[in-house]
Amino acid sequence: MAVRLNRRVTLAARPVGFPKESDFALVESPVGEPGPGEVLVRAHYLSVDPYQRGRMSEARSYARPVELGDVMTSQAVGEVVESNDPRFAAGDHVVGQLGWQEYAVARGGTLRKAVPGAPLQASLHVLGTNGLTAYFGLFDVGRPQPGDTVVVSAAAGGVGQVVGQLAKIAGCRAVGIAGGPEKVRTLVETFGYDAGIDYEREDVSAALKDACPDGVNVYFDNVGGSVTDAVFRRLAIGARIAVCGQISQYNLEQPELAPRNLGALIVYRARAEGFLVSDYAHRFGEALPRLARWLADGRIAHTEDVIEGIERAPEAFLRMLRGENRGKQLVQLL
Amino acid sequence: MAVRLNRRVTLAARPVGFPKESDFALVESPVGEPGPGEVLVRAHYLSVDPYQRGRMSEARSYARPVELGDVMTSQAVGEVVESNDPRFAAGDHVVGQLGWQEYAVARGGTLRKAVPGAPLQASLHVLGTNGLTAYFGLFDVGRPQPGDTVVVSAAAGGVGQVVGQLAKIAGCRAVGIAGGPEKVRTLVETFGYDAGIDYEREDVSAALKDACPDGVNVYFDNVGGSVTDAVFRRLAIGARIAVCGQISQYNLEQPELAPRNLGALIVYRARAEGFLVSDYAHRFGEALPRLARWLADGRIAHTEDVIEGIERAPEAFLRMLRGENRGKQLVQLL
Repeated sequence: MAVRLNRRVTLAARPVGFPKESDFALVESPVGEPGPGEVLVRAHYLSVDPYQRGRMSEARSYARPVELGDVMTSQAVGEVVESNDPRFAAGDHVVGQLGWQEYAVARGGTLRKAVPGAPLQASLHVLGTNGLTAYFGLFDVGRPQPGDTVVVSAAAGGVGQVVGQLAKIAGCRAVGIAGGPEKVRTLVETFGYDAGIDYEREDVSAALKDACPDGVNVYFDNVGGSVTDAVFRRLAIGARIAVCGQISQYNLEQPELAPRNLGALIVYRARAEGFLVSDYAHRFGEALPRLARWLADGRIAHTEDVIEGIERAPEAFLRMLRGENRGKQLVQLL
Repeated sequence: MAVRLNRRVTLAARPVGFPKESDFALVESPVGEPGPGEVLVRAHYLSVDPYQRGRMSEARSYARPVELGDVMTSQAVGEVVESNDPRFAAGDHVVGQLGWQEYAVARGGTLRKAVPGAPLQASLHVLGTNGLTAYFGLFDVGRPQPGDTVVVSAAAGGVGQVVGQLAKIAGCRAVGIAGGPEKVRTLVETFGYDAGIDYEREDVSAALKDACPDGVNVYFDNVGGSVTDAVFRRLAIGARIAVCGQISQYNLEQPELAPRNLGALIVYRARAEGFLVSDYAHRFGEALPRLARWLADGRIAHTEDVIEGIERAPEAFLRMLRGENRGKQLVQLL
């Protein structure tokens, strides 16, 4: 049998400020052989997500950076080609941290089966890290009560679009913040937000005052920066801030200085709490069937923005960082 | 009977930046007559506290500002002179928000009896707002576990000196931050802190690294500012930050800009939560007997810095704001 070739996207340089295509390289290597307990997977869809920007830097964070020359870290969903783990058989659809590559060898224990009956790529958004992040960040960290007003930044993004719909399921009023009239229209028309705020064209503070007359009970923060500063001025007493991401800060060459925010936590007796979805791995089995049921029932709508070809993964990633994607950004492998 | 005169300190001007003595006025007026349900109290000790700075400003906060010409708000402890509330009799020792004045008329429902058997002025520190703030802020917001490292800013102040000792009672390691070698020595020698850091003379970040090799599990923040920035860089995974006060910010004419801190909450999966002791009023009956027992048993030491005479209340307040007090700053009325 001829050696099969694997194409992979590696980190070629550590970006300074906003990443560019030349920070990545497309390389070919032989497809690996699964050892004992390992599984060979052929990927069908790859995910691009804001957290990947953090892994490209050496700055101290919650996870090790990707080394130069290593494949970019990423969730992917695909089909088992060969398995040395009795839990998986050829043809099974599985999800895992497989990286931006066409084939991956992974330990069986790091994989989970895709939710049966749902579209395969849903395991990279509503039934994957995005949906799980929304579920635990909103319900466990934000702790919404029926009647609460929940505000979400990057509300049209992969996580944000799920958060708003979960807030509605929980009996809350949902207000989304996004950039540009098209996204803001989607918030209300597709994702069931009660109101949308366009941070590029509106005064966010004034718009929040209109949209949240009783203040903000829960803020699900994906962006940080000046949008978050505005929300801090509109908190309700006892507000909870689930700090999920700070995408506005990831590509700055110098840290941005800002008004201090701890005094507001006293005034509003508010709680700001950061979280990582990986800390809830022991409870994915609780969340995934619920998310799958809501997806099947049409209570969670979603949109996808699919780019084809492993060689275009960097382009998909940069589009997402620039906010140009329309729905969850995916890369489909042919 | 001749009309008795009451001397009181009122707010004469709203301070710009750091307050000065001319922002206050000493005025005389007749002692009030208690109406139905009211009690006339002669004050023995007045309290001065950082929160009073906030009440002098019109900036939005959790409580209304003191109006110009009104008596400065303050806790005081004293003796009932005349009572129209059946729960109190002449001669009882009571505590309440009586203001900087020699005599006050208050509704009985706003008073509580001083803890019997303890020194009267303890109801203004360990057995008063300071001790209650330390108790609920540390135990309910900070939620220390035995073995945790608890860091306290303004650790020699009225609240901070109690927090460290409660942390020790809870089986934690306590590290205090204060200004100047004399205060730092007191932290360890008098208040049982395991280590003290002098923010005026040491690199706080480096000193924290030495004193907290496993990171900071609980941070009880009284000061904010650059001291707090340094602590944010030394948090342990799952840290809790009890935001009690931000005294470094209260006298700034312009808000200070600072590095953003929400990203650190994600990295450390940390929680920052503001609180007000008044929100725990329904549980003072739980805390006060415990604090009184620990005080009587010598498990909570304290120091007082007493200035005599109502006319010196502004001086006592400014001393405290400048950090020149040695122990809880009180004003004794003769």
